[in-house]
Amino acid sequence: MTRSSRPRRRLPPAQRRRQLIEAAVELYGRRPLSVDDITEAADVSRALFYRYFANPAELFATASRSAIDGLVGRLTAPREGTPDEQLRAGLTEFLDFVAERPAAYVAVIRNSSAISAETGGLVNEVRDAVIAMIKQRASLPDTPMLDLTLWCWTAVTEEATLRWLNRGEPDQAELVTWLIGQLYAMVTATLKIVS
Amino acid sequence: MTRSSRPRRRLPPAQRRRQLIEAAVELYGRRPLSVDDITEAADVSRALFYRYFANPAELFATASRSAIDGLVGRLTAPREGTPDEQLRAGLTEFLDFVAERPAAYVAVIRNSSAISAETGGLVNEVRDAVIAMIKQRASLPDTPMLDLTLWCWTAVTEEATLRWLNRGEPDQAELVTWLIGQLYAMVTATLKIVS
Repeated sequence: MTRSSRPRRRLPPAQRRRQLIEAAVELYGRRPLSVDDITEAADVSRALFYRYFANPAELFATASRSAIDGLVGRLTAPREGTPDEQLRAGLTEFLDFVAERPAAYVAVIRNSSAISAETGGLVNEVRDAVIAMIKQRASLPDTPMLDLTLWCWTAVTEEATLRWLNRGEPDQAELVTWLIGQLYAMVTATLKIVS
Repeated sequence: MTRSSRPRRRLPPAQRRRQLIEAAVELYGRRPLSVDDITEAADVSRALFYRYFANPAELFATASRSAIDGLVGRLTAPREGTPDEQLRAGLTEFLDFVAERPAAYVAVIRNSSAISAETGGLVNEVRDAVIAMIKQRASLPDTPMLDLTLWCWTAVTEEATLRWLNRGEPDQAELVTWLIGQLYAMVTATLKIVS
């Protein structure tokens, strides 16, 4: 049903196999879900879909935007207390936020770049905002290795959060304490190399 | 073209919108590429596809299996030298491996669970093997928090590797030194909490 009308070159089997794999790997990096996929799953008509969204990418951008709506603002809001207390309050707020919508969080984190450039962009937006806030509040130097370190700590936070949602342990307060300890340890190790 | 024959309930717009979003989020967690997607991209017939693979999930399992073929064996091979030297050799080998096939690495890491349970499983297989090796060689205790820490360090390694492929910096030796420093720092911070 998708035969092209151009004649195809004959290729040796190994090369053919390779070609199929390459085409698929390439596609996975950028494919959006089709409207049919979504209307079938939701058991609605295509016409109905188009009354709400122009295309699946817009649906995901909207869903993700609304899911993290306010999150960045809440995470980066001015806070009272020592840096440690501020970090604890921010992380607790983040985990509360995630615990309220675990399925959406898992889908966005696990598949952010597979869904669309928009959702990948939103995850990065949260990461960047958190990194900028930490650098500013802790008066950290602006070096590529420190940026890498903070970037990786946001990945640690996401991975640990997925595991926490999945396993129900450690308890939330313990996870927050651990994440703060990891941040200090990671940054300290990098500052030792950089300076 | 995908209208169902069952009558549909009338839903208020906000609920309808929510329903579409939920169906799509749910799908993204588990959808495979279709054969048409791949044959169109590769410009081959469906018949040709089926001479090579039973389905797209099999194609990805095969591609990923062959891509990481031997990687676990190479990473966990017995090595000479101090633990630090062994870690350095292992990480250097890993980065060499990745640098030889950057597009495939990016696709597998970025989309592992979106592609199929199989490729998600393969990424976890590499992580688990590396974690077991580190625990054994460093005689680390078997606690959930330490497992979490090592798991997150493998995520740090993946994130830092993606950034390294993308930006071309720091240089490979510097990245290896940094990753070792991060591992020691993360584990030490966790052992302080656990004990």
